[in-house]
Amino acid sequence: MARLAGKVRSEPALGRRRRRRSAEREKAIRAAALRIFRQKGYHAASMQNIADAVGLYKGSLYYYVSSKEELLVRLFEGRAEQVLGEIRAACGTGTRTEQLRAMVRAYVLGVLRNLDSVRVYLREEHVLPPAALRQVQAEQRDMRALFEGVIGDGMREGTFVGTDPELAALALLGMCTWVHRWYRPRGRLAETAIADDFADRVVRMLGA
Amino acid sequence: MARLAGKVRSEPALGRRRRRRSAEREKAIRAAALRIFRQKGYHAASMQNIADAVGLYKGSLYYYVSSKEELLVRLFEGRAEQVLGEIRAACGTGTRTEQLRAMVRAYVLGVLRNLDSVRVYLREEHVLPPAALRQVQAEQRDMRALFEGVIGDGMREGTFVGTDPELAALALLGMCTWVHRWYRPRGRLAETAIADDFADRVVRMLGA
Repeated sequence: MARLAGKVRSEPALGRRRRRRSAEREKAIRAAALRIFRQKGYHAASMQNIADAVGLYKGSLYYYVSSKEELLVRLFEGRAEQVLGEIRAACGTGTRTEQLRAMVRAYVLGVLRNLDSVRVYLREEHVLPPAALRQVQAEQRDMRALFEGVIGDGMREGTFVGTDPELAALALLGMCTWVHRWYRPRGRLAETAIADDFADRVVRMLGA
Repeated sequence: MARLAGKVRSEPALGRRRRRRSAEREKAIRAAALRIFRQKGYHAASMQNIADAVGLYKGSLYYYVSSKEELLVRLFEGRAEQVLGEIRAACGTGTRTEQLRAMVRAYVLGVLRNLDSVRVYLREEHVLPPAALRQVQAEQRDMRALFEGVIGDGMREGTFVGTDPELAALALLGMCTWVHRWYRPRGRLAETAIADDFADRVVRMLGA
């Protein structure tokens, strides 16, 4: 406090400012960890690498995060829930075909907007602690159940061909998740163009 | 040689027997390495684990293979070429639709018959030495070029809908490669049933 003696600033304002700075630093740490895990792989990445990337001493980094494992777990927090929310919203209105089209679009955009975390997750899931892995797998099951539900309804109504909604959902999720392997941000196709194209493909694949 | 004094056996026969035993052991080492890399991840797996799995001293393991990295590289040798050969053969005959159907079938079966090596490759490609990575990536490009060729021909002839064979190939390769994530050997669907189903889906996706 002594070094603030020359400035008049109330305690609450100082507290807010500190919290904001701390939140910003945590965000920078997560972003650096994601980038470094992606480039070097989780095993080869060190807490020192991450500290260097955000301009902190390694000791100070441990003030924000207790371990490399905790950092890995926190990289995935909230991401799948957001995409799940968008897909649920897409289920709500329109014909069966329109619903499916909007869901595929939301899913592809979800992958494209979380490219690095999808890539790190698929590579490193075997090092996730069991509770975190169960959480991500439950989200993946929810995602698949949403697609299976709409596809199954469409098959029963005769909108879509086939009798196996599970296999159809696995096929489309594969096609859409795989964009993380080949998409390049400055490539010839925009995110929305890929999402629209894939929505059309899925609908055709289901004979609608 | 002294311990063979009681048996009459010619030198050449002994050499053949040794070579055969050595080849069998190398095969067992590769199989164990694949299994252990798959279960524990490449970084966590040790040469000691692999030696234990095949009942060798760690020192003796180095008689067969110079490093863990060499083992990783050799796991992928020959696999993609074989699948490529099958896909090339499938290109050769029938209508455009029949060609594509046979190619997709060969590709899906190629993934299903090499499940562990596909899984290890996708997770560990970032630790492959540059020459080995270039080799695998060249094979993947050849694979995609074969699909793009047939799809592009079909689009120009009007058999398939669309004008972007590259995107169509990426979509189908994603769908088909992703089976490595969900396929379980004792699940409800046989390998050939999945391959046939996916071939139908791809053909429908292309509007044929």
